[in-house]
Amino acid sequence: MATYIAQPDLSRPPVLRAEIRAGRFDGPTAGFGGGALQANLVILPEVLAGDFLRFCQANPRPCPLLAVSEPGDPRLPTLGEGIDLRRDLPRYHIWRDGEMAEEVTEIGAFWRNDLVAFAIGCSFSFEDALREGGIPLRHLDAGRNVPMYRTALPTRPAGCFSGPTVVSLRPMPAAAAIEASILCARFPLAHGAPVHLGDPAMIGIADLDRPDYGDAPVFRHGDIPVFWACGVTPQAAIVAARPALAITHAPGHMLVTDLPAGQAERVLAGVCGLA
Amino acid sequence: MATYIAQPDLSRPPVLRAEIRAGRFDGPTAGFGGGALQANLVILPEVLAGDFLRFCQANPRPCPLLAVSEPGDPRLPTLGEGIDLRRDLPRYHIWRDGEMAEEVTEIGAFWRNDLVAFAIGCSFSFEDALREGGIPLRHLDAGRNVPMYRTALPTRPAGCFSGPTVVSLRPMPAAAAIEASILCARFPLAHGAPVHLGDPAMIGIADLDRPDYGDAPVFRHGDIPVFWACGVTPQAAIVAARPALAITHAPGHMLVTDLPAGQAERVLAGVCGLA
Repeated sequence: MATYIAQPDLSRPPVLRAEIRAGRFDGPTAGFGGGALQANLVILPEVLAGDFLRFCQANPRPCPLLAVSEPGDPRLPTLGEGIDLRRDLPRYHIWRDGEMAEEVTEIGAFWRNDLVAFAIGCSFSFEDALREGGIPLRHLDAGRNVPMYRTALPTRPAGCFSGPTVVSLRPMPAAAAIEASILCARFPLAHGAPVHLGDPAMIGIADLDRPDYGDAPVFRHGDIPVFWACGVTPQAAIVAARPALAITHAPGHMLVTDLPAGQAERVLAGVCGLA
Repeated sequence: MATYIAQPDLSRPPVLRAEIRAGRFDGPTAGFGGGALQANLVILPEVLAGDFLRFCQANPRPCPLLAVSEPGDPRLPTLGEGIDLRRDLPRYHIWRDGEMAEEVTEIGAFWRNDLVAFAIGCSFSFEDALREGGIPLRHLDAGRNVPMYRTALPTRPAGCFSGPTVVSLRPMPAAAAIEASILCARFPLAHGAPVHLGDPAMIGIADLDRPDYGDAPVFRHGDIPVFWACGVTPQAAIVAARPALAITHAPGHMLVTDLPAGQAERVLAGVCGLA
């Protein structure tokens, strides 16, 4: 008679977060959490929180704000019951004076009563929608990270935060680009529609084969480049602002919320008044 | 004391149709009718009506069907009270054996008890939406007709009807093309989103400066070509089918309905079950 060992159901966000919190899961979160909304995390001292809040609200395409914590409070109850931002992400980056200093799996030792956490929408939501819509995602098919580029499109500065808009690139046929624009427009909290397509030089990208972040792109015959505002933009703004301390998620190691991605816009519109 | 002569209010569709019917208005309808939905007209003998109906339903992007008359009935009550298709369009084309034979201002003399009329959505609806959305329309700014091209994109044949998809071209910047895709997707009964953008050769267009219908395009620096399925496609199908008799509107001289363009999709979805 076989012995069955109960496995945690990592498609359930609270279970996944509990496994992360217990130190049994420290990898990338893509594909886990059963299609729940995932989020970028930025944590800053309260003295900079007002500037950063205004930066996000002035730049909603790269920095769609999902939730903001109370100072010193590591919870984000609108995104999930019992979330503890100090331990519920698999990996974090600690930034000092605008430079990445350290990668850690929990931030309890860095927590302070003046820290404010910002959850920012992430492209995983719209990539699910694109895939369901039959749109090819070349980087995922090739097992690569999405290519990302600093552009000549400036963000709107707010206080000490400024810098270039960072974009992600997804090559696809022209008809797919049209369909992707329509689909992604339904997800304003996940970067929305593309910001550019076609000639990369028009947004200040010199060489597609040399992205500033991520892996080189994969093009098939007939593909055109399609560019989305990217959640790495806040990290470029942190580099520009050089705060003494900032904490972010490590790339790909996101906050997994309890919100179904397809319903997140509607839920948050009621909860936070973002829409 | 000045004398005022009452002028008919041509922004009201029933008034405009009455002026047309009385022979006092025989020009293009663009800009008249106060933003009401305008329609392409195709009239065919009942023996071909089943084939053409299936052709429209198989090719909804170029041939979005708004209404179909009963055989011999020149009214289309779902599109406007009192419409008389024999006299309410400014100009008609009479086709014999697939060739345009004659342009007339009314078709009472050609009407037969076996004729069936088809009203097909028109690009005027989405052009209004694009203009309101701040999207440039180069051909209108230059006072030109939109350029149209026969493509290598085949329609789905139905009975004797077949032929190429005809597309219209609107040059605009890439960011406007993204926004136009999103806006036009809301108007499936007015050709919907673009079918292609970028390289014309990929849909079989050899030379943009030599359109098959309409005027040459106007490009500004940074513009890319954006292509929509076009209501001229049914005329190409009539050429292919070579019916003994067909009647259409003359280009630009449309049926002006009573439906506000922005609400037409919703109204017709209830009335005709098209959605």
